[in-house]
Amino acid sequence: MATQETLTPSGDGTDKAAKPADKAPLPVIKRVGLEGVVALDSVLSFIDGQVGELIYHGYDIKDLAENTTFEEVAYLLWKGSLPNRAQLDELNAQLQAERELPPMVLDVLRSVPEDAHPMAALRTAVSALALFDSEADDPSPEANYRKALRLTARTPTIIAAFDRLRKGKEALAPLKRNSTAHDFLYMLNGEEPGTAAERTFDVCLVLHAEHGLNASTFAGRVIGATLSDMYSAVTGAIGALKGPLHGGANVEVMKTLLELDRSGKSPEQFILDKLAAKERVMGFGHRVYKTLDPRAVILREMVQDLSEERGQRQWYDYGVEMMNTMEREKGIYPNVDFFSASVYHMLGIDMDLFTTIFTLSRMTGWTAHLIEQWSANRLIRPRSEYTGPRNLKVVPINQR
Amino acid sequence: MATQETLTPSGDGTDKAAKPADKAPLPVIKRVGLEGVVALDSVLSFIDGQVGELIYHGYDIKDLAENTTFEEVAYLLWKGSLPNRAQLDELNAQLQAERELPPMVLDVLRSVPEDAHPMAALRTAVSALALFDSEADDPSPEANYRKALRLTARTPTIIAAFDRLRKGKEALAPLKRNSTAHDFLYMLNGEEPGTAAERTFDVCLVLHAEHGLNASTFAGRVIGATLSDMYSAVTGAIGALKGPLHGGANVEVMKTLLELDRSGKSPEQFILDKLAAKERVMGFGHRVYKTLDPRAVILREMVQDLSEERGQRQWYDYGVEMMNTMEREKGIYPNVDFFSASVYHMLGIDMDLFTTIFTLSRMTGWTAHLIEQWSANRLIRPRSEYTGPRNLKVVPINQR
Repeated sequence: MATQETLTPSGDGTDKAAKPADKAPLPVIKRVGLEGVVALDSVLSFIDGQVGELIYHGYDIKDLAENTTFEEVAYLLWKGSLPNRAQLDELNAQLQAERELPPMVLDVLRSVPEDAHPMAALRTAVSALALFDSEADDPSPEANYRKALRLTARTPTIIAAFDRLRKGKEALAPLKRNSTAHDFLYMLNGEEPGTAAERTFDVCLVLHAEHGLNASTFAGRVIGATLSDMYSAVTGAIGALKGPLHGGANVEVMKTLLELDRSGKSPEQFILDKLAAKERVMGFGHRVYKTLDPRAVILREMVQDLSEERGQRQWYDYGVEMMNTMEREKGIYPNVDFFSASVYHMLGIDMDLFTTIFTLSRMTGWTAHLIEQWSANRLIRPRSEYTGPRNLKVVPINQR
Repeated sequence: MATQETLTPSGDGTDKAAKPADKAPLPVIKRVGLEGVVALDSVLSFIDGQVGELIYHGYDIKDLAENTTFEEVAYLLWKGSLPNRAQLDELNAQLQAERELPPMVLDVLRSVPEDAHPMAALRTAVSALALFDSEADDPSPEANYRKALRLTARTPTIIAAFDRLRKGKEALAPLKRNSTAHDFLYMLNGEEPGTAAERTFDVCLVLHAEHGLNASTFAGRVIGATLSDMYSAVTGAIGALKGPLHGGANVEVMKTLLELDRSGKSPEQFILDKLAAKERVMGFGHRVYKTLDPRAVILREMVQDLSEERGQRQWYDYGVEMMNTMEREKGIYPNVDFFSASVYHMLGIDMDLFTTIFTLSRMTGWTAHLIEQWSANRLIRPRSEYTGPRNLKVVPINQR
């Protein structure tokens, strides 16, 4: 364990947040990767992986998925309580009014090459939104609430516009009279969604809105803690969610499902062959949830209804048989990604957009974390330990 | 101290980096803001604030500032050794060749409103660069080195183009035959810089290239640790540097210098009046450096030469008298921001661009940290502790 003197202090340049030197510093500890270090308090979510519990601000995820909409959950995360009818109506009206993109941001999306990574396009467009928001650098809580709302309203429009433009279609203007789920599916597919489609997608948004201090949320809070603005923080969070170790697991699930569909094998045989080849079956098991992922339990039933509405019953049947086989052979259960993959596929969402859908939902959690961060801000600043060489002298370049 | 069971685990969804459960977890500790927690090892820089020492990869900052250029320092940070003549020539040729912007990124800059925050414009343009880089998602070390180089080459072009376009001028193409410092000052001002101007700016770039695990570098590594790409990580880092608690101190210094210039007071009287009014004098003292900021010592002499070359001797004279007064009255010394402010002002750089100049230089440190992160990647993932309500039940909306 290095002593304090041998550690590189963090921080840079003059620091307005400098504290008086009369406070004794905490003893230095080393935790590579920050494993097991509690960096901050949060009222936003609680996860108990042992019993398969996920809570948003006091409410069990199952209760929320059955009895609320995505917009009610957004309000809960931002405001700390569920909205009453008048509050929800106001929020919905605000989201609908904010859904349209500034024309220049649409122009940016038009200039994006068709083979661009969807998360890179989304990251760029969200960053560009700031340039056309006169409140971008207003740090007041009121302005930050409005920006959270605006970001949540516009992200679906960006994703749908990006997808249509890359396919040579014109971007569709939002209908501005429906839920986030409804308007997004309309803007993406050019037709209004069926009842099961809208409801299932809405539940997916509820299930992905918030999940503790994961890497993207943490990146956003680190950025926000410098008192930078909300656009900077969520742009960084999008960049983190883009990473294959974070977002993207349901893309792998979808590849597996399509591979099964092409293989002509029974789902049971497909799984048995994978296990025999010691290949990992994506969508099963979870780092946090040791029994059931509560989100998977909720989504499973909805997949059945949706597959019937869409006339694509095979995705549900594949899922059930794969699940039964994995439980019997390995004793592990499907996670939320296992079911969201086939849901998104049935809703007409291209596989490479799945992580942007995650972003659409998590925008509420990220912005809620930023509002929480700024309510009692403190820089988030660990240290590094210097392990490089010492006492080198610059040799003139012609002698190197 | 909460027990492990009451803490919110970090992480999200299925996690490919999940470790086997047979490793006993470290005991949970709580350090709000991660104060005094060593999150990672780094060979890139070492700071000893007690003796005023800053080292980049074994070399003292004074030695580097006197005997190397920004491009040599970039090579040192990326490759771990100073280049020989052939290596430096190759690097310079590569940087020159990569300096031009993809036409679409210039178009994005053309659409930026003239009153946009320069860091928001830079963040958006850097994010957009990824869309036109076919290697953006190539994670190989070779591609990442080329991206580090490309980002370092193009950031100055973005800043200069942004500034000229917002002033109604046409953006200038890079000359592609000079140093980063030379080509940037040419693209910004439309005339080639004098010897002292180029040399002083080059030293400023050397001095700001790297400074341990500050908030922007940390944000970049958190993003990179999800195995996201270099553009995502540096876009997030730019967002963090934008925060007033991180970048931006030399902007405050410049405001102070301009205030002094307008006041008609002697620098001594100006300082005494500020101290009597218990106002903070920006540019003095440092959170880390308890004696002298070694970067300030280096820059002070250069300010003298530059102010003579530019015929603006007053900035140097103000600085010396302010410094002497602060040392006599408060026993504290100027930091790097104190001198960089007047340097940038004399070089024709608008005050609101100062943090973009910091970015230009620090791009080398950020990208070097990412290369280091990916050489032995590990997720960076602390936890939050849940402090919200429990056991709430959703009440039907009409009864709320």
